Amino acid sequence: MESLSETFQNASCRTSGSGPRSVQVLLDALQGEDGGTPSDMYGKGETIERFERKLARMLGKEAAVFFPSGTMAQQIALRIWSDRKGSKVVAYHPLCHLEIHEQDGLRELHHLEPVLLGTEDRLITLDDVKNMPVDVRCLLLELPQREIGGQLPGYAELEEISAYCREKGIALHLDGARLFEILPFYQKTAEEVCALFDSVYVSFYKGVGGIAGAMLAGDADLAQQSKVWKRRHGGDLISLYPYILSSDYYLDRRLPQMARYYEEAKELAALYNDCFGIRTLPEVPVSNMFHLHLSAPRETAERVVAGVQAETGIGLAAYLRETGESACATEISIGDSYRDVPKDELREAVKLLGERLAQANRS
Amino acid sequence: MESLSETFQNASCRTSGSGPRSVQVLLDALQGEDGGTPSDMYGKGETIERFERKLARMLGKEAAVFFPSGTMAQQIALRIWSDRKGSKVVAYHPLCHLEIHEQDGLRELHHLEPVLLGTEDRLITLDDVKNMPVDVRCLLLELPQREIGGQLPGYAELEEISAYCREKGIALHLDGARLFEILPFYQKTAEEVCALFDSVYVSFYKGVGGIAGAMLAGDADLAQQSKVWKRRHGGDLISLYPYILSSDYYLDRRLPQMARYYEEAKELAALYNDCFGIRTLPEVPVSNMFHLHLSAPRETAERVVAGVQAETGIGLAAYLRETGESACATEISIGDSYRDVPKDELREAVKLLGERLAQANRS
Repeated sequence: MESLSETFQNASCRTSGSGPRSVQVLLDALQGEDGGTPSDMYGKGETIERFERKLARMLGKEAAVFFPSGTMAQQIALRIWSDRKGSKVVAYHPLCHLEIHEQDGLRELHHLEPVLLGTEDRLITLDDVKNMPVDVRCLLLELPQREIGGQLPGYAELEEISAYCREKGIALHLDGARLFEILPFYQKTAEEVCALFDSVYVSFYKGVGGIAGAMLAGDADLAQQSKVWKRRHGGDLISLYPYILSSDYYLDRRLPQMARYYEEAKELAALYNDCFGIRTLPEVPVSNMFHLHLSAPRETAERVVAGVQAETGIGLAAYLRETGESACATEISIGDSYRDVPKDELREAVKLLGERLAQANRS
Repeated sequence: MESLSETFQNASCRTSGSGPRSVQVLLDALQGEDGGTPSDMYGKGETIERFERKLARMLGKEAAVFFPSGTMAQQIALRIWSDRKGSKVVAYHPLCHLEIHEQDGLRELHHLEPVLLGTEDRLITLDDVKNMPVDVRCLLLELPQREIGGQLPGYAELEEISAYCREKGIALHLDGARLFEILPFYQKTAEEVCALFDSVYVSFYKGVGGIAGAMLAGDADLAQQSKVWKRRHGGDLISLYPYILSSDYYLDRRLPQMARYYEEAKELAALYNDCFGIRTLPEVPVSNMFHLHLSAPRETAERVVAGVQAETGIGLAAYLRETGESACATEISIGDSYRDVPKDELREAVKLLGERLAQANRS
């Protein structure tokens, strides 16, 4: 029998993503590209500077700097704030990317001391911020908080956190890996959201669906200093254009789709929440993403989902991770693929999944 | 009047390089590529692992790890050796890439303490190595030493340095940014040269002419640890395939050309050394590269070279840097372009350059 990931890949349509990460993604982006376009050269040249100016305008910041990765961009942003503020203590959520996905780069390379704010199962609140140790001079907020399904604070609370940090002289940095994905929920422009923050990082391979790449935006000094650190990190490549051109291409293409992805995420989550033993986090998505939680042991659920995918031809989940003895979850990120899923068949597939899970739990 | 770089770009043929760094370099590498080829995923998958295995074999090391840049790869190599050997002191040449081109990343991120060995105008010798401070536990050698025109120690001296380091337990790391370019002079395989070193970095955008990218090779532990540091540096991108595929493509294409580039470099250097006021360093190249030194103030030389380039249509130099009150220099790296230069016209152009420089110096 085919595995969960095989049945997802072999399905005739998928509820998540914008298609496979394959070389075709690059080929599509380069179609029509002029071969004579000169490479960027160590961070200079129109190919990179034009895209940096475009994002600086979009995010409403003085300047923006293209990075090969968000890992690099964010460590550097926090390092610059730490140096400016004269404190090595920065605060972020316990499930922040820097805390769980970067092999402790922030500590190992920059010797910063993170304070974990809030708890693993909920967002950072205004109260958390007000109760931070006094030596915290920089706070990172991730919008949406990916590891808990992509949750968001209310906009009013976000404004209060921002006002508090400004009042106290605490630098506020936005992990906006999925910033574009939350604009339809907040009903704000990127510039309006970013105005609440002193610096912001955005990614081009989440909802945007590019190949890799990130942008760090802030004041002109921060941008300039970040280029020095980019060189130190080994990220100031002679040529970043494969990422720049593809990021620009997919940004133009996918930004107008974000409202649709958000509506579709709510539609799909509602289908799941109608089923026994299935719930989504958040219950009502606030972006294109949510986590799908199944009440069954991971191996059981893998078998059940794989079976439903094979029978219906609809890809529901590429993987499941264990979240408890009899519980597992996967991440859903709505992209271009969802629109090709026949909605009647999807309802049937989800219903079938619920029935099979109930059956498996009884037996 | 057109500038030096304009006349170089507009020339009908060029003595240096393998053509402009433009998007065409990527388009050429991707021609015939299967769009269905899956992306590497955070350092995993056949697309990256196959290329890493290929280079590990080629360099005769247990394992190899692909990096977005040599800056990242080499800092990490030195950091791993420093941790293993329990000493923060590493030694390298005063004009080492880490010392002059990386914004002090090695000190700022890894807190290593470099000892500069030898002097700016010559290679590191066996005597230098024997007289290193005792706390130096890692030595980096760059072959060829790029900033002094691409010079090389004799192979026997290199073997002696290697034997000495092995005897003393000093880790020997090879900055092999231009390793493939020196094999014809040494009449050795990459594996034979690398056998003298504990770890080695090679680049894919020097003589190889790729877009960007580097490989770090060594023992399996070093490779494994380097992946952790790659993640910390922000270099463990979800997708590095634009660099991997192009590096592989141009490596296959250019490796067989290295002997030819070397012969052509000697040919071109001999032409220059016949002229008044012009000399090359080294006088007889030992790779595809050399530095061209002109006895004239930079501005004068720029005007003269630009004029010769405009008149003859042969690109001789894209830039000149001042090296003294009445002296300037440029770097020549023979690549594919040289073969398209008509040799009779080249001789005339070089002769004309010598005459014009003599004339300019008299007036």
